[in-house]
Amino acid sequence: MRKFITKSTKKAGLPPGTLIHIGDKKVDQTKISIIDYDDARLNEKEVRTIEECFPFKDQPTVTWINIDGLHDVEVIEKIGKYFDIHPLILEDILHTGQRSKIEDLEQHVYIVTQMLSLDEDSGEIQEEQLSIILGPNFVISFQEKAGDVFDPVRERIRTGKVRIRKSKADYLTYSLLDTVVDNYFLILDKLAERIEVLEEEMFNHPSSETLRTIHNLKRQIISLRRTISPLREVISRIEREEFALIHESTSMFYKDVYDHIFQIIETVDTLRDLVTGLFDTYLTNASNKMNEIMKVLTIIATIFIPLTFIAGIYGMNFKYIPELEWRWGYFLVLFVMLIVFAGMIVYFRRKKWL
Amino acid sequence: MRKFITKSTKKAGLPPGTLIHIGDKKVDQTKISIIDYDDARLNEKEVRTIEECFPFKDQPTVTWINIDGLHDVEVIEKIGKYFDIHPLILEDILHTGQRSKIEDLEQHVYIVTQMLSLDEDSGEIQEEQLSIILGPNFVISFQEKAGDVFDPVRERIRTGKVRIRKSKADYLTYSLLDTVVDNYFLILDKLAERIEVLEEEMFNHPSSETLRTIHNLKRQIISLRRTISPLREVISRIEREEFALIHESTSMFYKDVYDHIFQIIETVDTLRDLVTGLFDTYLTNASNKMNEIMKVLTIIATIFIPLTFIAGIYGMNFKYIPELEWRWGYFLVLFVMLIVFAGMIVYFRRKKWL
Amino acid sequence: MRKFITKSTKKAGLPPGTLIHIGDKKVDQTKISIIDYDDARLNEKEVRTIEECFPFKDQPTVTWINIDGLHDVEVIEKIGKYFDIHPLILEDILHTGQRSKIEDLEQHVYIVTQMLSLDEDSGEIQEEQLSIILGPNFVISFQEKAGDVFDPVRERIRTGKVRIRKSKADYLTYSLLDTVVDNYFLILDKLAERIEVLEEEMFNHPSSETLRTIHNLKRQIISLRRTISPLREVISRIEREEFALIHESTSMFYKDVYDHIFQIIETVDTLRDLVTGLFDTYLTNASNKMNEIMKVLTIIATIFIPLTFIAGIYGMNFKYIPELEWRWGYFLVLFVMLIVFAGMIVYFRRKKWL
Amino acid sequence: MRKFITKSTKKAGLPPGTLIHIGDKKVDQTKISIIDYDDARLNEKEVRTIEECFPFKDQPTVTWINIDGLHDVEVIEKIGKYFDIHPLILEDILHTGQRSKIEDLEQHVYIVTQMLSLDEDSGEIQEEQLSIILGPNFVISFQEKAGDVFDPVRERIRTGKVRIRKSKADYLTYSLLDTVVDNYFLILDKLAERIEVLEEEMFNHPSSETLRTIHNLKRQIISLRRTISPLREVISRIEREEFALIHESTSMFYKDVYDHIFQIIETVDTLRDLVTGLFDTYLTNASNKMNEIMKVLTIIATIFIPLTFIAGIYGMNFKYIPELEWRWGYFLVLFVMLIVFAGMIVYFRRKKWL
Amino acid sequence: MRKFITKSTKKAGLPPGTLIHIGDKKVDQTKISIIDYDDARLNEKEVRTIEECFPFKDQPTVTWINIDGLHDVEVIEKIGKYFDIHPLILEDILHTGQRSKIEDLEQHVYIVTQMLSLDEDSGEIQEEQLSIILGPNFVISFQEKAGDVFDPVRERIRTGKVRIRKSKADYLTYSLLDTVVDNYFLILDKLAERIEVLEEEMFNHPSSETLRTIHNLKRQIISLRRTISPLREVISRIEREEFALIHESTSMFYKDVYDHIFQIIETVDTLRDLVTGLFDTYLTNASNKMNEIMKVLTIIATIFIPLTFIAGIYGMNFKYIPELEWRWGYFLVLFVMLIVFAGMIVYFRRKKWL
Repeated sequence: MRKFITKSTKKAGLPPGTLIHIGDKKVDQTKISIIDYDDARLNEKEVRTIEECFPFKDQPTVTWINIDGLHDVEVIEKIGKYFDIHPLILEDILHTGQRSKIEDLEQHVYIVTQMLSLDEDSGEIQEEQLSIILGPNFVISFQEKAGDVFDPVRERIRTGKVRIRKSKADYLTYSLLDTVVDNYFLILDKLAERIEVLEEEMFNHPSSETLRTIHNLKRQIISLRRTISPLREVISRIEREEFALIHESTSMFYKDVYDHIFQIIETVDTLRDLVTGLFDTYLTNASNKMNEIMKVLTIIATIFIPLTFIAGIYGMNFKYIPELEWRWGYFLVLFVMLIVFAGMIVYFRRKKWL
Repeated sequence: MRKFITKSTKKAGLPPGTLIHIGDKKVDQTKISIIDYDDARLNEKEVRTIEECFPFKDQPTVTWINIDGLHDVEVIEKIGKYFDIHPLILEDILHTGQRSKIEDLEQHVYIVTQMLSLDEDSGEIQEEQLSIILGPNFVISFQEKAGDVFDPVRERIRTGKVRIRKSKADYLTYSLLDTVVDNYFLILDKLAERIEVLEEEMFNHPSSETLRTIHNLKRQIISLRRTISPLREVISRIEREEFALIHESTSMFYKDVYDHIFQIIETVDTLRDLVTGLFDTYLTNASNKMNEIMKVLTIIATIFIPLTFIAGIYGMNFKYIPELEWRWGYFLVLFVMLIVFAGMIVYFRRKKWL
Repeated sequence: MRKFITKSTKKAGLPPGTLIHIGDKKVDQTKISIIDYDDARLNEKEVRTIEECFPFKDQPTVTWINIDGLHDVEVIEKIGKYFDIHPLILEDILHTGQRSKIEDLEQHVYIVTQMLSLDEDSGEIQEEQLSIILGPNFVISFQEKAGDVFDPVRERIRTGKVRIRKSKADYLTYSLLDTVVDNYFLILDKLAERIEVLEEEMFNHPSSETLRTIHNLKRQIISLRRTISPLREVISRIEREEFALIHESTSMFYKDVYDHIFQIIETVDTLRDLVTGLFDTYLTNASNKMNEIMKVLTIIATIFIPLTFIAGIYGMNFKYIPELEWRWGYFLVLFVMLIVFAGMIVYFRRKKWL
Repeated sequence: MRKFITKSTKKAGLPPGTLIHIGDKKVDQTKISIIDYDDARLNEKEVRTIEECFPFKDQPTVTWINIDGLHDVEVIEKIGKYFDIHPLILEDILHTGQRSKIEDLEQHVYIVTQMLSLDEDSGEIQEEQLSIILGPNFVISFQEKAGDVFDPVRERIRTGKVRIRKSKADYLTYSLLDTVVDNYFLILDKLAERIEVLEEEMFNHPSSETLRTIHNLKRQIISLRRTISPLREVISRIEREEFALIHESTSMFYKDVYDHIFQIIETVDTLRDLVTGLFDTYLTNASNKMNEIMKVLTIIATIFIPLTFIAGIYGMNFKYIPELEWRWGYFLVLFVMLIVFAGMIVYFRRKKWL
Repeated sequence: MRKFITKSTKKAGLPPGTLIHIGDKKVDQTKISIIDYDDARLNEKEVRTIEECFPFKDQPTVTWINIDGLHDVEVIEKIGKYFDIHPLILEDILHTGQRSKIEDLEQHVYIVTQMLSLDEDSGEIQEEQLSIILGPNFVISFQEKAGDVFDPVRERIRTGKVRIRKSKADYLTYSLLDTVVDNYFLILDKLAERIEVLEEEMFNHPSSETLRTIHNLKRQIISLRRTISPLREVISRIEREEFALIHESTSMFYKDVYDHIFQIIETVDTLRDLVTGLFDTYLTNASNKMNEIMKVLTIIATIFIPLTFIAGIYGMNFKYIPELEWRWGYFLVLFVMLIVFAGMIVYFRRKKWL
């Protein structure tokens, strides 16, 4: 749960713009890959030093520089200097766990958001920060670790003759964001599935483990809501065409992303309502089961305690207990017990407990 | 519950505008029917190929092309090309489970919404996506499967001499939307009826099945709210006369639809509050019943356990227990027991447990 | 609860503007009464046919036509034709259970709202739709059944020399709405009284009947909120002087009504919070009572079960049980039992159960 | 709780502007006191008839007329006539339980709000309506009963050489409102104290009385919120300098009052959250205690019931029970019982019940 | 909890602008320290009398006067006079527990907010009021007690050659506010940690102490929300460049603070949701445990009570009980008991209680 708190003590008191990587080091080696393309040409390579990216800056082709791994502060610093990025932005890139936001910096647009993945083992949702610097003809993306999320985008670029090859850097940015948002659907899909399973489990064989799972799920959805919702504002600002670097022709596509993110947030809210509903039902269900248990106990106790008392009476050792002498005393008492028993059964039937 | 998540994994990573039908295939055969009319003429037919619709596009009469079944992507693609519809719109038509929305596309207006029906067997509410393309003098509607929802509209067109025959395509669109919204009332009617039944059941003979039904009902209403509410924004935008293709004269009718959709959303909220109320009452009721059960147990146990103890005393086999030798010992002890019994009864009466 | 759904299946699929009375037929005979007045003259009569009202339309005096009973569609239709009212408005008049709203129709203003009354027997709140057509110098009011709600207004008109006689039709409309709103206070008064009674009942002798009453009350208040709240918007629009037919001089009075309706809505919200609070308290109270019951059971059982066990020991028939032979064995065992008993009492006192 | 409903049945149906005192008669005698002052002079007196106030109306000094007691309708009527106040305003003054509001009446500003006090005996919060008529150089204040709330203001006026003596009637109005708001803090202080006490009580020795107190407190805070919150809007409108009679120089002071009222409302909300929290904790606590009680019962019963059964076995009178003949049978059976006992203890320890 | 109420009775009734220190006296001695710097020079000293600060007022260098301790009203009064600060502002400085706010006073900007620290012993969050007067080239900060919170800022000033030395007083103000906000993260970090611990504790070994801790935590978070949230408005107003004294160049930095405060508020909301979730889970968990306890009791009682009854039957002393005479009677009865026992076990297994 520590992840709710993203600005750690490491940072407090330092002057603004100090570059320190805050977050887990998720890869050993910073990986830098470049795809440079236009309608006709395509140049894809992986480079060792960040300096190799610099020549692409002023070329008319679209250049996508992707950096996996944030722990090497020097690389970020060099990019910052060469591409002329404000120190506070560099700080944000390095400082993982940022709220999604977009900032217009005259020469660039800076977008930061969180990619989500579901750890299959722990069932925990994991965040990875994605920072995008959109320049006039380049896109620099920063990820915490190498991943295959953007492979479909790369694949599309490689294909050629598709819209992405004919479009500018703003369309590439759209493609990246669209991919991020599409991946949110996968997370929601899995969460919905889990809720379905829990619902089944709750009614059929609830355990305290079920309760714990519901609790965890709720916690995750609360956290998910917080992570996803600021992205809506980001996309909405793009769609309203506030940014000079994002052209009108791309705006229709952002509208589409906006619809998706809106739908996602509504779905998260619905999921949350459902999990809260699970809680209420769980509690009520437990209360129901208790009633059932208590009924059994009460029926048994209420029938046999009086009978045992009668037996106790005639187990007393008084010298003079006339009934004990009767020839059919025993059978009479058994008969009385039968009457009591039958009476109780009738009583419970009337109360609809049986 | 899977339906909460509408954008499936099938889609993630594909370029935007890729036409794939996402959703269940609900009919075997795509059915295309055309009604072409104006004040004087009426031409109604069912066609085999989509190409047969094309001649109607530029005629001055109002043409309503209705397509049932979305799995035949080719048909949609052809319409898209001929009627010049944006690929992202075609994608939305094929991709069922969309949030209701309206989009102004210069030459057309695109409206997507969900029709609802109640499956009598499972009691589940089922969604069917309705897409409407409104052109200057044509309406193209896309449904997932053939249904009789729009039969009254067809009937009215056939009648002649009614407003619909004298009006333009925008009035036809209104008629379709009005019919969709009217059908929501039927759903609400049935849900309200079920709540009423559950309320009766809860007070008279609650079972864990009742709980499950309440839980399911709540889940459905949460989902219903999410489905219906975006339609309000859609109708409100039409009513505010944002769209050139919808004339001012029709606006009064949309105002009427807006009132209905507003009333529906309020009713859904009310139903939700009522179902939540059912939960609280159920829980409290269960707690009440438990109290009653426990009272019975406590009364019986509290009366007989001490009596049994007394009997136990005189069942002991000590050589010397003076009372056992007394002539009236037995009757004395019975009398003591009676006193204890009466005392307990008085005690419980004072506590108002009896 | 059916009343939550006001647009019934009777209507779905009919063309807009079709006149059908939807709602219960509450009177046998449509009653039409006319009051025609100005500063000097007063003319009050009850008429048989609606045509008798028509002459008043163009007179300079204020004419109030009141129609009780909506089942006679023909009457409404004739009024509609003669006073030139839009068919959708006529439909709304006939179609009871409308959301309160106001519509500006150039020549008239149409206001629809719900009057409330409390059925003393069932304790249910009953709605009756009031439609008002405000013309330049006439007011037509439609009620579902004859009632005495507006008698004070009639009385005031008859008095003469009062403001209402010197004012226009817009002031008459104000008087009617003010009377409707004043009647809401009576309903709230009775609901508040019931809550007070329930509160007393809950703490002093709660039963499952109490629970049911709380549940019903909550349901009614939820429904009441939904009925009353749209009226605020109606009055607010009048107060903002949006309507040409309502003169500025009357606006101060509408401000007063607005204050009242605002206060009413706040009171309904407060009542709702209070009833919700009753629920929580009821549940917690039940839990408390359970604790008390369980304490009694536990104390009795915990004291006597061990004692009975001891008695059981010496009731065994073993040949050789040395204690049984002792002279004071019986008294010793009684003493031991006393010690155990006292020990238990001390234990319970320490636990503050006694 | 009746006080939730402030417009009583007494009023319904009367024409607007009818002067009737609605509320409890809290004093026997209407008390009228006048303070007339400017920088240099001070004239303070108590008068018998309202006519004595009239000469002050047109003097350049600031005149504060305070009226305690509203039951004498005639007095109010005379003031209304002489100072030319709208009948609906007079109605509001007499009609206690108004929502706080401010109205600009060209020649005056009318402010109505509620003063609060805490009845020490019943612990109930009591409202008293304060109406203020602010004229160009006079302030008329109406209270339901004589009180010492405004004594500090009087004291300050008497002191001389302070800002109030140099200021206009608008500053006097500010002083009165500031005093009212300052008194709210006292109420909140006491409520917070009570919550603290209840919290302690709840954890240490909860009783059903505690529950009732929490319930009452919650009810009061709900009602308090409703009473106080409209005052924010009142002060905010003054601060925004909407009123010609309130000069810019005083506006800074109203800003201060606004801050206070804002803080008060936030505090009320916080208190409400806290009381709601108390409820949840109370319920959970009760549930906890129940668990503890049940554990004791279960441990005792689970240990002794089987032992008693064993004793019961050997208390049977069968002719042939071999164990009974054994020399050490009794001790053997005691040993077996000890084993069972020890086993149970171990079992409970493992379950962490002991 | 007293701290919810910040304006104490000490104050009520006094004229506005009266200087009284309201709050705890947290230090014995008012400490005044001055740092005066520009790009080139640095002058740092601690002074005895406030008069020593006055010469710095009109120098072109940036002067930061920090005052620790508010009980010495005279000091504040002198500053007020010399720096020409409105009496109501001085009152706010002295009156601790203010809502965070910012006020533009032509010559200065006044900012008040609360610093937070966590008392390690009691676990309570403690507030300390920070008031900042920002002038053209000076900053006066007022703290309730000496602390080391601003040491990093001082350190940075001493370093030289950093942005702060080249910037104006508005940047110094930013540095102070940024430090305050950064410290909020530490508080949140610790609260999140506590929630994590509680969650573990709740599932593994819940006690009534756990409940109390959850209750306290919730109370603190409610209070925290109230303290922190007004700061957002303060920073937002600065960022929107409403204040002439805060230059555009600093605005980017305030944007950064705004992002942080926004994130903090969202985190507080999330924490609150989590704590509320803990409550629900705790209650449900307790209910679960109860079920488990009741099962054990019910199983034991239901098995042994009937068996004991059978034993009781044959413990009766009737003269004629034929079974007692049978040779294998005893063993037969033992066998019957075994059957009953086995039957019960099977029954419980079917019910899934075993």
